[in-house]
Amino acid sequence: MNNAYNHSFSASNQLTQKSVNRCFDGEQHYYSHESTSTKTPMTFSIYLPDEALAGRRCPALLYLSGLTCNADNVTHKAHFQQKCSELGMIFIAPDTSPRSSESHDVPNDERYFVGQGASYYVDATQAPWSEHFNMQSYIVDELYDLLRSEFPIDSIGITGHSMGGHGALLLGFKFPSKFVSVSALSPVCAASESAWGQAAYTEYFGDDKSLWAQADAAQLIMEVGQQYTNILVDQGGADNFLAEGQLQTSKLQEACNIAQQPLTLRYLASHDHSYYFIQTVIDDHIEHHWRMAQMG
Amino acid sequence: MNNAYNHSFSASNQLTQKSVNRCFDGEQHYYSHESTSTKTPMTFSIYLPDEALAGRRCPALLYLSGLTCNADNVTHKAHFQQKCSELGMIFIAPDTSPRSSESHDVPNDERYFVGQGASYYVDATQAPWSEHFNMQSYIVDELYDLLRSEFPIDSIGITGHSMGGHGALLLGFKFPSKFVSVSALSPVCAASESAWGQAAYTEYFGDDKSLWAQADAAQLIMEVGQQYTNILVDQGGADNFLAEGQLQTSKLQEACNIAQQPLTLRYLASHDHSYYFIQTVIDDHIEHHWRMAQMG
Repeated sequence: MNNAYNHSFSASNQLTQKSVNRCFDGEQHYYSHESTSTKTPMTFSIYLPDEALAGRRCPALLYLSGLTCNADNVTHKAHFQQKCSELGMIFIAPDTSPRSSESHDVPNDERYFVGQGASYYVDATQAPWSEHFNMQSYIVDELYDLLRSEFPIDSIGITGHSMGGHGALLLGFKFPSKFVSVSALSPVCAASESAWGQAAYTEYFGDDKSLWAQADAAQLIMEVGQQYTNILVDQGGADNFLAEGQLQTSKLQEACNIAQQPLTLRYLASHDHSYYFIQTVIDDHIEHHWRMAQMG
Repeated sequence: MNNAYNHSFSASNQLTQKSVNRCFDGEQHYYSHESTSTKTPMTFSIYLPDEALAGRRCPALLYLSGLTCNADNVTHKAHFQQKCSELGMIFIAPDTSPRSSESHDVPNDERYFVGQGASYYVDATQAPWSEHFNMQSYIVDELYDLLRSEFPIDSIGITGHSMGGHGALLLGFKFPSKFVSVSALSPVCAASESAWGQAAYTEYFGDDKSLWAQADAAQLIMEVGQQYTNILVDQGGADNFLAEGQLQTSKLQEACNIAQQPLTLRYLASHDHSYYFIQTVIDDHIEHHWRMAQMG
C-alpha cells in the first residue's frame, strides 16, 4: 500500500482491506468481511480522518443508502469527506443488502424495490428472504460491534437517504441506546403505506401486519415517543418520489408532533431526489451529528 | 422540467438539454449537440450558479478530463458545485473524445490510452483518426464559441486532470488570447516523452516529430514563454503514474523556469491519481481561476 499516510492504524484480520485513498486530511477505506447475519460477504466504506488514523477516538456517522445503491454511490458522489476531515468525524457507508454472485442471496426479480439493493434494513421473516435478508441485525448488532472493536469510535449517529432515511429513523428509534443522534435525507417515512414498502414487506413479512407496523418509521416514532434532543430531516420540494407518495414526509411530521419529538424539517424548493441534492445538504447533517456527539 | 429553479435562462435549439438538477444555489445541466469538428454528437455538462441563471455574466472554468473519462466522472465525483455556487462561477466539462455507437468514430483498440476517451485534445493528422479526432478545434473554436453564445460567460479559464491537465496546459499556452487563466491537476507534462502519449501520437500524427513537439506541453511553454501571471499545478506524491514516468512533472517545472512562467507547483504527500485527490484540491483551483478572472 504505497499511498498510505504514515500512521499507526490497521484493522484486524476479521476485515479484508479492499482499497485506501488519501482524501483531504484523512483516508477513504473499503473493507469486506464474512457476515454471520446475512451469511454472505459484506462490503462497507469508512472515511477515517487523521485523528482516527492516529488512534484518537472520534464520533462516527453511519449512513444508510437508498434503493439500488451500494457503498460506492455515497462514497463517490456525496462529498462527505471534506467536512468529516475538517471536524474529525468518521463516516461509514454499508451496503444496502446482502449480495453475491451465488444464487442463495436472492437477487431481485426485476423490481428495483425488492431484493438486492432493497433490504429496508429489516430482518425478513418469510422464506426465501429470511435466510439472508437480516440487515437490521447486521447493522445494529454485527456491523455495529465490528466497527466499535476495529476503529477508534467514540459515539455513533445514524443517517441515510430515501430507503436509507427510513432505515436511519427506524433503527435510530428502535435502538436509541445505540445511537447518539438521528437525521435523514428524503426518507421513506411510512414504508408500510408506500407502494415500494408494501411490495417489499409482502415478500419479507407476508401478511402479518404487526410486523409491517414495527417496520414503519412514523408508526414506530408514535409508539416509542421522544428519544433525541432534535432530529434533522431534509426533503427536496421537486422530488418526484415525494409527488408519487413514496416518501410521505407529512406522516413523519405528524408522528413527531404526537411523540413530542423535536424535528427540524426543511423543504428545499426545486431540489430533487438525486445525489446533487444529497451533496447540497450533507454538510449540515454531518454538523448536526457532530454537535449532538459533543453534547454527549 | 419540474425541478427547474424559476429563472429566465434557456439555451437555443442548437443544444439538446439532457438533464437539469438543482445543486447548491445553482443547476447542473447536461447538453448534447452535433459537432462539425468531430462530425459526431458531443455531450458536455455545465454548472450554472443562480447568478448565471438570472442572466448575469459570470467567469467560467473549462475542465478537461483524463483518459477513459467522459463528462460524468468529474461532474459526479469532483464536487466543484459547492465552491462554484459560493463564488458564482460556471463550470464546463466536455467529453474527452468523439464517440458514438457507430463505427466511424474509431473506438479504442483495447488500449485505454488511444482512441475513445483518449483524444489528447489535439487535431489528428493521420487516417483514420483525422476524420473525427479533432478535439483541439472542437474545444478552442467550436465549443468555445458555442459556450460564449449560449451562456452568460464573462471570461474563460482552463484546467484539467492527467491527460486533461496536458490539454489545459497545451491549449492554454497555444491560445492565450482565449483564456484568462490556466491550472492543472496531475498533468501529463511532456506527452511526447511518455509511453501513453507516444502510443497516441504515433496513431494521431505518425512519424512527423514536429507535430509531436507542438503537442507537448513542456516544449510548447519553452517555445512561447510566459503567458499568465501565475499557473497552479497540483500533483499527488503517491501517484503511481508519476512513478511510472507518465506525468514527468519535473519537465514542466524546468520549462516554466526557462520560459520565466511563474508556477505554483504543489506536491501533496500520500495523495494518488484518483478523484479523491481531485476533490481534495478542486476548491483551490476554482479560487485560483476566480482570482485571475477578477484581475481581468
